[in-house]
Formats: sequence, structure tokens, C-alpha cells
Amino acid sequence: MDVHLLTRALQTRNESKIVMLVADGLGGLPQTPDGKTELETAATPHLDALARIGIQGASIPVLPGISPGSGPGHLGLFGYDPLQYLIGRGALEATGIGFSMQPGDVAVRCNFCTLDARGNISDRRAGRIPTEQSAPLAIRLRDISLEGADLFVEPVKEHRFVVVFRGQGLGGDVRDTDPQATGVPPRVPQASDPESQKTANLARAFYDQARELLSDQKRANGLTMRGFAVRPNLPSYEDVYGLRAAAIAVYPMYKGLASLVGMDIVGEAQTLAQQIDVLRESWHDYDFFFIHFKYTDSTGEDGNFNEKVRRIEDFDAIIPRVRDLRPDVLIITGDHSTPSFLKNHSWHPVPTLLVSDCCRPDGLTEFSERACLQGGLGQFEAKYLMTLALANAGRLAKYGA
Amino acid sequence: MDVHLLTRALQTRNESKIVMLVADGLGGLPQTPDGKTELETAATPHLDALARIGIQGASIPVLPGISPGSGPGHLGLFGYDPLQYLIGRGALEATGIGFSMQPGDVAVRCNFCTLDARGNISDRRAGRIPTEQSAPLAIRLRDISLEGADLFVEPVKEHRFVVVFRGQGLGGDVRDTDPQATGVPPRVPQASDPESQKTANLARAFYDQARELLSDQKRANGLTMRGFAVRPNLPSYEDVYGLRAAAIAVYPMYKGLASLVGMDIVGEAQTLAQQIDVLRESWHDYDFFFIHFKYTDSTGEDGNFNEKVRRIEDFDAIIPRVRDLRPDVLIITGDHSTPSFLKNHSWHPVPTLLVSDCCRPDGLTEFSERACLQGGLGQFEAKYLMTLALANAGRLAKYGA
Repeated sequence: MDVHLLTRALQTRNESKIVMLVADGLGGLPQTPDGKTELETAATPHLDALARIGIQGASIPVLPGISPGSGPGHLGLFGYDPLQYLIGRGALEATGIGFSMQPGDVAVRCNFCTLDARGNISDRRAGRIPTEQSAPLAIRLRDISLEGADLFVEPVKEHRFVVVFRGQGLGGDVRDTDPQATGVPPRVPQASDPESQKTANLARAFYDQARELLSDQKRANGLTMRGFAVRPNLPSYEDVYGLRAAAIAVYPMYKGLASLVGMDIVGEAQTLAQQIDVLRESWHDYDFFFIHFKYTDSTGEDGNFNEKVRRIEDFDAIIPRVRDLRPDVLIITGDHSTPSFLKNHSWHPVPTLLVSDCCRPDGLTEFSERACLQGGLGQFEAKYLMTLALANAGRLAKYGA
Repeated sequence: MDVHLLTRALQTRNESKIVMLVADGLGGLPQTPDGKTELETAATPHLDALARIGIQGASIPVLPGISPGSGPGHLGLFGYDPLQYLIGRGALEATGIGFSMQPGDVAVRCNFCTLDARGNISDRRAGRIPTEQSAPLAIRLRDISLEGADLFVEPVKEHRFVVVFRGQGLGGDVRDTDPQATGVPPRVPQASDPESQKTANLARAFYDQARELLSDQKRANGLTMRGFAVRPNLPSYEDVYGLRAAAIAVYPMYKGLASLVGMDIVGEAQTLAQQIDVLRESWHDYDFFFIHFKYTDSTGEDGNFNEKVRRIEDFDAIIPRVRDLRPDVLIITGDHSTPSFLKNHSWHPVPTLLVSDCCRPDGLTEFSERACLQGGLGQFEAKYLMTLALANAGRLAKYGA
């Protein structure tokens, strides 16, 4: 069931405001079976106050046991079935560095590599060339001119960069040129379907000119291309929900994901406090606000339990400033769990809290992994969070008479 | 969504061991509204100890309200959607007596019947002929020779036996020859699709020769054929999960079901204690162990509440020997409920317990129908148990970047 069939049909506009605060990787694990999680350890008076007037549940990012990356994790929260909508590797890479892909664009992840005198790959990562050296080389490749398409080349990190082809009739089904081995040359770009023949031709022309431009290099004198991908065809928030949506994020990846569903990227905040400043400034211009807080995830990935606890407390501290704005619906959630015990994204359901004046409070007094299991939202797939948000905002009409 | 698309793509191999202990028909009912279930009545100190460090949930075998047979019940636990994968009656009957069906085989359930002088059925079950008399007759039918196919005839019980045709190009879509009535002759085998014409011809040739071989019999002088079915095409545990799997069961049905998903049938245990011996002996040869305990179901089907309680206590008693092996993931579940109150398989969710060092314990202190409702796994469809097992074993990579 594509729930957007319902939200498209039932969406209703009003003056309500919805705020979704996403603490990335929020869910955690105790360090011992009888211990507390990061969220249970943190002092979170403001979240607990919300728990007393809100309704909680445990959000399953994709399906039981499936640990999502940032892409599927956020698509779920945005109400796009993460199993239905896939973001190809090249498109995610481009999105992750903040490149705004247009419909029809094809993005590719590229690696600089070292070729020997016979043209065979001797180092697939060009000796992990440092970014200071590789970025100017990527920018040099912008001089390449292609017939029938615009070209964008964006440095990433070390040996990695991104290429985007923009033009008419470009399919994304081109095979990787990286042979995943040394001692052989990069493969020639080959289309897997007729619609991608033009893309394969562009990739070949790009490669030939790049070889010329890199011919003075010792280490980064070649390149491989992987994960050709068109921009995913995601309907916009305006279309599926009738919401003017704003994203207030610090990191490019999350701005990119939000822009794929048609959110405006608002402000240039560098801290959570500045993100809330931007929220206040743009309050009258949008119906929906996605605010992304990164450090609950990065501290979890570092395996730093105590630092994740502290970051959760930072997150808690900004709640009063959000409540001052009196949003009609306030949601606290995460795109997945990142237990510091695992130092990685995990499958564990994410504590999720929704507050509105018609949310049917469930009588809980604390926001945590354990509390949310008793919550009124039960365990639910993340993709239903947006319908719940719209309903609580009075933005969904009755289904059937 | 076929979750095997995900597990095939994300499966990761490591040294972990997963043990799934299945107490058949585990879930029960109280005898009065304020009473306790069989599991709640039983003294289960070892299961309760696991509850304190594990995570519980209520497993829905198929869908709410649907009571499964052993086939769908186990397919769900094995992670095969029981609504997607059907085991035809003939194939289940063959599997149930431990016959190892090969891809392409067609199995049929047959009944001896009594034919009158005009060839009409006068008794559809040959007077419920006792097994001592019917088994030699079934074996006599092995003398039949068919052109273009091998034949297997296996006695079952009383009037029942199983026939398997093995050859090239045998479809399974042949109509029952049992007219479900007396006073009429058995029907001629008829194919429902062109692919099954050869099977229908074989069935007819088998029938004609069988009539000859049974012509000296008074009661069992005819036969009917029902439930023609090919071997179900189930992908293997190795394919879908990357697991080398072992089944340690006493009864043929469960060995058969396990072999359909590619598990090795290990040992020749006759008791639960011997099953654990086999588990220990084969510990280093497999990644996954399915251990089937029958008597929680059979006592439930007998309507013997107290005996089911005792059998649950037997089951509890072997837990320490399993824990001694330090499995990375230990699961306790059942394929369905068999409340002694109903004397039958039922739809009630099954208490399920998973223990691993990253399971996110839910703080429960008892394993029971009532406790599991508060558990961290919530109510979930049984088919997701294997993804949870793999995730807890560190055997699933992240979905999407």
C-alpha cells in the first residue's frame, strides 16, 4: 500500500505548523543487560515533560532486523516507503556532498586510480591521495567539454569525487568501470539498456579527456566510475502532503535528502542553537519543519556512550525554545538507532514522541527505549509517522463517507 | 515485500552461532478467564532467567486469527512468508513421513478404498484397514513399473499411503480422483494444465496396474488419489541467509520441513536430551541450529493441561545445557499455539524470546503469554524472526548508505 495515494486524496490545508526534530541515531543499547541506554541515562527533563502530554511509540525504520543507512532512514521518516524508493549510490553520493540533482541528471562516484605504463590499474585508490591534492585535480576535470550534456565535477575526499551528467535522454543503467582488481585496465563504460547508451558514450568521452588532463600525474593518472544513478523520482512534500516544507540541517547529506523530497533548505546554521534561530525566523513561511541533529549518531558511531548521553542532553535543552513557538504538532524521533555498544547504525526501533492537543496521551512520564514500548503508538513502521503528523495537524480529511 | 530480497543482498558471514529452540504449540490459554496458561503455570526458572537478559515478543504465525498447520507454522519461523510459499498436500504428506522429495517430483496422497463388483466405491477408506494389513499392500505396489518415470510408494497409516512420481517434465496440477462419494467409481486422473498431462498419464497407468495387483483383496481392492503436488520451490537457508543450517528433530514431519529449506538433518536423537547431545556434537559444523520439541503440541492436542505444563518444564530443564554452548543468538519460540483448552492448533500469538548481547533487554523477568505482550519485540509476524536473528548475530549489512 502506497500511503501517498491516501495523503494525496485526503490532504487538507490549514494554518497548522508541524515540527519534526530528528536526533540522528537516537536509539541506543545498555552496556549490560540490566543497564540503561544512552537516552535512559541522560537527564532529559524537557523531553520527559513532553512525554507527559504526548504519545510515544517505537518506530521501525524499515522492517524488523533491518539497519538502514541515512537515505532509507530519512525516507521512512519523510513517509516514503524505503523499500519502494531507492536512492542509487551515485545519487546518494552527490546528495551527500550537497549537490542538488535535477530530474534527468545521472551521478557517478569516481575514484582516482594509478595506471601503469601499459594502462593497467596498479593502485585502485591512487595511494589514497590526500584531499588537498585530489580536489584541485577534480576541479581541473571541469574543463572537459561534452557534446550534448553539461558536466559537473565535485571533489569529495581523498581519492573520491563525483561526476554528474546533465542532458536530455540520459538513462542511469551503466555498468561500473571499476574492475575491482589491479593488473587490468578500467572497463569501458557499457550501457545495460538502450536508454543508457547516451550516458555510456558521455562517460567514455569524459574518461578519454580526463586521461589527457591527468597525464602529467604520477599517482592520480586514471579514474574508475561506479554506481551510475539517476536522481530518484520522489514526489514532493507539496504534492503528497500539501505541505510547504523547510529543512534546517547542518550537514550536506541531510540537506540533500530533504531537497530530494522538495523541502527548501533554509538558513546556514552551524549549531543546534542556530538551527532553532532559523526555525524562528522562518516560522511564518512554512507548514512543516525538519530539523536534523547529527551528533547523537556520530557519538554513537564513535562508541562513546558518555558523549552520546551529553549530546542527548544538548538536544533536550533546546526543546523549550521549540515549544515557545507553539507548534500544533511536535515530533521527536530518530532515523534509526546508533547504539554506542555497536558503533554502528542498527535495526532497533527508535523512541518516538508526538505531541499535539489531540494526540491521546498515553500516561507515560519519561521518554526512553523502555517507556516507548508501552506507548500509545505501539511499534510502527516509520513510514506511517507522516500520516500521524498530518492527522494530528487536522490536515487529513475523512477516508470514505 | 519478500524479505529474502533484503537478506540475500545484505547477508554477511561471520563466526556466530544461532540456536532456535521450537517448542511446538508452545502458546496456551488459561482454563478460566482469571487463570494461568500452561506456560504461566509451569515452573520455568531457566526460561525466566533468559527473560531477564533477553527481549520478548508475541509472534503471529501467519496473520491475526489464522491458525496454521505445521507447514506454514514452521515456514514462518524459518522466515519464508507462509502466504507466499505453499506446500501442497501431497508434498506435505510425503515430507511428513520423511520422504525426501527432489525438485520435479510429484507427490500424491492415496487412500485404499473398497470397490464393488461394478467398480463403484463402496467404502472410501477400505473399512479403515489397519496399518499391519495396508502397509504390505502399499509395498506390493512398488512392483508397478512406469514408462518415463520412477515410482516411490510409501505406507502411511491405516488406509493412507503416498505415491511419488519422479521424472522429467512432470507438472503437479492433476485433479483428485477421489469423488468424495460412494456409489460412483474413482475418477480418471485429469490434468488441469498441459504441463501436467504426463503426470496424469502416469497416474492412470499406476492406477490400472494397482487394480491388477490388488485384485485378490476384498477390502483394499481400489484406491483414490488426492492432493497432487510438486515439491515446493523453497530457496535454501544457504541462499537466502548464508547460513549452514542443521535441524535436530525427532519426528519425520519436522525433519522434512527443515530439509525443504536446505537444512541438514543431523543425528538420530529420540529424546530432547539426545537432541542437545547432537547439538553439542555438531556445534562446530553449522551456523544455525533448529531444535524441535514435539510434546508441548501433542499434550495440547490431547487437551491435557497438566501434562503440557510438565512438558514445558522438561523443555525448561535443558536450557542450561544450551546456554553452556554460548550461542550468539538464542531464540525460544513455537510454531503456533496449541491450547489444551482448544485441543487444537490456534491463532494466538506465541511467546517468543531472543537473547543476544545486543538484543536490547526489555526488563521483563518472566517468560509467558502475559509478559511477552510488554516485550520489546512487540507483536510481530513470525516471518521476521529470522531477520531479527541475523541482525542480532551481526550477519546483516546496512540497507542503503
